[in-house]
This record gives sequence, C-alpha cells and structure tokens, in this order.
Amino acid sequence: MPSDRNRSEPVPPASVRRLSVYLRHLESLEATNRRTISSRELGKALDFTDAQVRKDLAHFGQFGHPGVGYRINELVRQLKAILGTDRIWNMVLIGAGNLGHALAAFPGFLQKGFTLVAIFDADPKKVGTKIGTLEVLPMESMNRFIRERLIRLAVLAVPPAAAQDIADELVEAGVDGILNFAPRRLSVPSHVTVNSVDLAAQMEQIVFAIQEESR
Amino acid sequence: MPSDRNRSEPVPPASVRRLSVYLRHLESLEATNRRTISSRELGKALDFTDAQVRKDLAHFGQFGHPGVGYRINELVRQLKAILGTDRIWNMVLIGAGNLGHALAAFPGFLQKGFTLVAIFDADPKKVGTKIGTLEVLPMESMNRFIRERLIRLAVLAVPPAAAQDIADELVEAGVDGILNFAPRRLSVPSHVTVNSVDLAAQMEQIVFAIQEESR
Repeated sequence: MPSDRNRSEPVPPASVRRLSVYLRHLESLEATNRRTISSRELGKALDFTDAQVRKDLAHFGQFGHPGVGYRINELVRQLKAILGTDRIWNMVLIGAGNLGHALAAFPGFLQKGFTLVAIFDADPKKVGTKIGTLEVLPMESMNRFIRERLIRLAVLAVPPAAAQDIADELVEAGVDGILNFAPRRLSVPSHVTVNSVDLAAQMEQIVFAIQEESR
Repeated sequence: MPSDRNRSEPVPPASVRRLSVYLRHLESLEATNRRTISSRELGKALDFTDAQVRKDLAHFGQFGHPGVGYRINELVRQLKAILGTDRIWNMVLIGAGNLGHALAAFPGFLQKGFTLVAIFDADPKKVGTKIGTLEVLPMESMNRFIRERLIRLAVLAVPPAAAQDIADELVEAGVDGILNFAPRRLSVPSHVTVNSVDLAAQMEQIVFAIQEESR
C-alpha cells in the first residue's frame, strides 16, 4: 500500500517516471479486459527487467499476489493513487498561440484527469477568442482566477522572453506545478516543480544518437 | 576536439542531454555578445556543479583555455558539431491534426537546424490543405518521398493505434530517428532512435512531486 512507504527515503525520479510508463501499459491492457500480469511480462513488454519492475514498485509497498502476479485493475488504481492522478486536477494554460491551441486540444491530458479550466494570453487580439469551449482571458485576470479557484497546475506556452515573469506571477498566485514549453530555464522556489519540454533539444538528442550509430 | 573521443566508451545519455542545456544557455549568452565563460559560471547559471560541466565536456575533448575559460562562440560551434546540429536536417511530420499544426509552426525546430520538408496524413479531408507553406500529402506518397529525399528524421503526431504501423513504414523507408508524440511504446530495430514525448506523463510527474512536497 502506498501508505507503507518510508518517507525519509526519496524515490529516484527515474522510478517515478517508470511508474507512468507502467501505468500507461497497464491501462492499455485493462482496455483489453486482461486481468493479471507478472513482473516479468510487464517488464518484457516495456524493455525493463522484472527485477527493475519489482524494485520500482517496492518503493511504494507490496502489490503482487503470490501465484497470480499483479491484478491489473488493482495496480492501475494503486499507481494512480501514488502518482496523484486518482482525482481531477484543474490546470490553466498561458499562451494561446499555435502550441497553446494544440495543448488545449490535446486529448491525453483529460484522459489522465487533467482538466483545462482557463486560457490566458497577453495579446488583446487573442483575448475573447474561443479555443474549444474556453474563451481566452486577459493576463490581468490570471492572478485572481488562480487564487479564487485554488489552481495548482499551469501549462506555460509563451515566448521565452516572457516565461520567467509569468512563472513568477503563477507562483505568487499559488501555482506549484508548471509544465514549461518555453526553451529557457525558469527560476522558481524550491517547493515548486517545473518540468520543461524542449522539443528541439529532444530532436538534438535523436540526431546525436543517429550519428553515434553511424560512427 | 570531438574527434579525440574514445568511441569504445559510450557517453551517458544524461551527459548528452546536458549538452543541449549548455548549448541553449551559451547561445543566449552569445546573443548578448558575451565572449567567455568559466565552467563555474556556466554550472551556476544552470544549477550544475562546475565539476559536472567539466566532466560532461571531457567526454568529447578539451575545450577550455587556461586563464580564459570557454570561448562562447567556439564552444557553441563545438557543441553543435558534437550534437550534429552544425548542419541542416530535413524532417517529415506525420499527422496534420492540432498537434501536427502546432509542431509544424514550432519555431524552435528551424532555429536549431531542423527543417520540415513534408507533412503526411491518412485523412483524405486533410490531404491538399496547407500548413504554413507546406501542402499536406497523402500517406501513400510517404515511403517514396523519404527514399528519394534520403530523409532520416520524422515527427510522429498520430493517434496511438496508428503509431506502430507508421513507425514500421518510416523505418522501412530509411528513417532512423523518430520524435514520437503518440502515448505508446514503439518497437523499432536497434539502429533506430525513438524519443517519446508523453505530455500527460510529464504532468503526472509534476503532480507526484507536488504531493511529495506536501506529505
């Protein structure tokens, strides 16, 4: 059970990342009505060793059943509870450009319990336009919205030059988790988590690997 | 110099990822006309130790100058040569949905030397429409296009159910690097590099960290 965990011992970030990978695969199995899986089968499907699977899960308790393996629907529920996606999280999006439009329409967020509740943009020409069912709101209303709705998650899809100022304002209003698409490093207080998605850097890594392959 | 590297010793992926981070910061400094930087200053700006910076770079040669530190424009050039972004890479995009539109318009790719040369989609209603200056082409023309133009990079922005089949076809045509946005694992031959961007999983990691913070 998640509550068994020794909290003095931080879980390696790589283990937490793999929980998302396990969860994704288990959910796809759940959709096929499969009932159980062993650590070996789970690892094999995802190119991990069974020892790795068991070790990652052991940070959070004992989930398997002797002679049965993991019950898939049970493990899905437990992984969601561990990750915190067993409930709905409201989030705001800053930036109504092309990337903002794509992120607002991205089906994966809602499937995982992340609900976009507002979109803000500094450009008066964008304010008042609609993206899906949401109207783009002016930046001036962001702070109050976040405070009143107790929003903790923000998706930042603004130009790099604007990113730090907006991050400061988000944090000041109460946001403590930011998914950042601006290709620059953000300074935030230690209680705030920023995950940056730098797509060009991802492509650089691919190109490096391609070259290594042909060296 | 990059050519000094002992190729029998693979560079840790985390070091390669940090090269992208160093490069991004150095380019922003270059734009301000700054000339030199020490490993300590570079590390400090990015929350790494100076030892980490020196160790990462040491995989590829000797870049610093005694009493000067790193010459910024020189190190930018060298990092690009190491990563392989000292030249233009043509890439194709598969999927002309919302995410495809955003990716096609994403300015970061071109800035880093990645040039989108074609967009393919299976939906006849999308074929023939324009995204920027490019016309969406039918999937049936993808294989030949990749072969004739010797394309090696693809961005995959298609529904999960279609992703593996398209990946197979890309690889068969000669692609050896795929930036995958479909939330599923792709099986590819060992000479092919796939980097998967799972935005919902990134958000899950943020939520986990937020909860850890408040436990």
